[in-house]
Amino acid sequence: MFAPAYLDYNASSPIADAVREAMLPYLDARYGNASSRHEYGRQARAAIDRARAQVAAAVNAHPTEVVFTSGGSEANNLMLKGFAATRRPGLIAIGASEHPCVREPARQLARQGWTVETLALDSEGRIEAQAFEEILSRRPQLVSVMTANNETGVLQDIAALAAKARAAGALFHTDAVQALGKVAVDFRAAGVNAMTLSAHKVGGPIGAGALVVDKRVELAPLIAGGGQERGLRSGTENVAAIVGFGVAAELAVARREAFEKQARVQRERIEAALSELGAQIFGAGAERLPNTVFFAFEHLDGETLVAKLDRAGFAVASGSACSSADPEPSKTLLAMGVSPEFARGAVRVSVGIATQDEEIERFARVLGETVSGLRQMAAVAA
Amino acid sequence: MFAPAYLDYNASSPIADAVREAMLPYLDARYGNASSRHEYGRQARAAIDRARAQVAAAVNAHPTEVVFTSGGSEANNLMLKGFAATRRPGLIAIGASEHPCVREPARQLARQGWTVETLALDSEGRIEAQAFEEILSRRPQLVSVMTANNETGVLQDIAALAAKARAAGALFHTDAVQALGKVAVDFRAAGVNAMTLSAHKVGGPIGAGALVVDKRVELAPLIAGGGQERGLRSGTENVAAIVGFGVAAELAVARREAFEKQARVQRERIEAALSELGAQIFGAGAERLPNTVFFAFEHLDGETLVAKLDRAGFAVASGSACSSADPEPSKTLLAMGVSPEFARGAVRVSVGIATQDEEIERFARVLGETVSGLRQMAAVAA
Repeated sequence: MFAPAYLDYNASSPIADAVREAMLPYLDARYGNASSRHEYGRQARAAIDRARAQVAAAVNAHPTEVVFTSGGSEANNLMLKGFAATRRPGLIAIGASEHPCVREPARQLARQGWTVETLALDSEGRIEAQAFEEILSRRPQLVSVMTANNETGVLQDIAALAAKARAAGALFHTDAVQALGKVAVDFRAAGVNAMTLSAHKVGGPIGAGALVVDKRVELAPLIAGGGQERGLRSGTENVAAIVGFGVAAELAVARREAFEKQARVQRERIEAALSELGAQIFGAGAERLPNTVFFAFEHLDGETLVAKLDRAGFAVASGSACSSADPEPSKTLLAMGVSPEFARGAVRVSVGIATQDEEIERFARVLGETVSGLRQMAAVAA
Repeated sequence: MFAPAYLDYNASSPIADAVREAMLPYLDARYGNASSRHEYGRQARAAIDRARAQVAAAVNAHPTEVVFTSGGSEANNLMLKGFAATRRPGLIAIGASEHPCVREPARQLARQGWTVETLALDSEGRIEAQAFEEILSRRPQLVSVMTANNETGVLQDIAALAAKARAAGALFHTDAVQALGKVAVDFRAAGVNAMTLSAHKVGGPIGAGALVVDKRVELAPLIAGGGQERGLRSGTENVAAIVGFGVAAELAVARREAFEKQARVQRERIEAALSELGAQIFGAGAERLPNTVFFAFEHLDGETLVAKLDRAGFAVASGSACSSADPEPSKTLLAMGVSPEFARGAVRVSVGIATQDEEIERFARVLGETVSGLRQMAAVAA
């Protein structure tokens, strides 16, 4: 069977074996509804309690601060809309490179009378300090800035931003979906009020995420009903996915330092090849996730390159795979001052725990051949 | 290992073997993000397309009418809040026995300026015809009435209610979560505009549900972001759960007639035992789901009875297991005119596809012994 080399871990990651093992009983004999007051229900409840402790420990939060959701998108929507529903409309500030699942709910709030300001980026993808101070002076109620960007991998100095926001009286939320397992993530040390996590980015299953949220944040539920998750997220708990999330979070943190080293070596190999071929690497001057490289070649179409690599057996991403069939160039790159034309050529490679050095060597070689081939075709056509 | 007889299928059902088989590849080698434009992504996308066709076929809808969600609670919230977000506040009418995941979002809308009216029930749990006509005369924008109640199993005449609502210019939504696989469910024939479904009530996994919705219903997304599900439900699609839902829906419909027969026989056996013991069966005069019986004994506490049955190896429900740790008596029973004291004693038994006649015989015997024992204790104490 044909199994392409998977270099798209920021889009989704394979489920770790230990995670799958932990999940399977809950897809089989342990099928209780965690709200049921009988043996099946109690087993499900106990499993969720364990997973809550694991996820909390992974980011140095308290278990009571973990609200399980169906994933990162739901957690970000719960944060923004759940917060707004408890307040009179005011000012919310979000980073210019936030994921659509922060940007779009913010846009919905703007239609309901909220003022939404976008925090500008510098050319390396970091929140621009002046602009941040200026917006804080206007007393936002909430600031949401992602820890690591899904496309460029650029890291923000969340602790510093959160401290300033706090001093200005704003609550601070960070989408840490791409950061967990790749860099150190500490809810308490970062001084944030809320943090979004997702299982399937860290070797867990699709279908589980969390909003970690401290007691100062008042939220209305996005999904109201039976009152699960302390009334903040109703619906029968997805026991198997939550159990998988717990194990995956624990594993991701345990493996993080080793993975950082592995990923850095593999990315350096890719970046050496890219430099030789004359690619531009976005955010190269900033602190970035160790596993991610986002790049483009002048006069080379990203879609074509991705399609050629796909046929050659390499799964990489053009733009952000999280955004379904979005034909627009990356908003992150535009915010960094990249031209729309050049941004349209962007390609993302993201390695993961199971990525082999041999795959990277092969990728570097095939990338070189493919780029040369496309350039020759362009030269012939010209 | 101790495996109690599971008689709580309305709370959650075991995953059917064929469903688990279909899901496993998507928890293993097929881990792509369905938005990714490479081989892994295409496999995931194709799997979701197949499941969408299966779910649509199961309820006689068109695949483009199926919006996958994380479950029934999310689908009901999407319906009510997503509808309200596109309109000026007006009147919404909901049944008095709706699940909390309809009741609670309706309550949230009431705080945002909507008028929410509750449709009264008769003593058998059916929507009261006079009250329904009266509310329609006030021109509601949306009417939401469940097809089958989760506690009593009482069925509403959805086609008749929907026709009247349509004639009055209202859109009609039905929560059919408990009906699928137990009675015939036909989106088109019922003449409804929207219908909620859930995978884990029909032998599918927790973590997938759907809002089936026709083109006349304009909705704003509850979870906004990457634009998945035609912009109505963002977030990386839970491929494994959706695949499981598709197979489960197909299977539930294929097995329905045989299951109805089996369930009816098993319920009649239980009801014969209940009658002998002097129990009252709620909604017994109405059309009900074949698998469900909701009952109480005068002067016997339901919690105590459920706990004793649990220890004796039978998993049954006190009140609604969907509502987590709700100490209030069943709102459905109160709406049927049952006294709060008597309602507090209510116990639900719901059988499923794997329920054995032998388990039912054993249950009838143990129920008799347990009730006699509790009555003797009460007599001694008095």
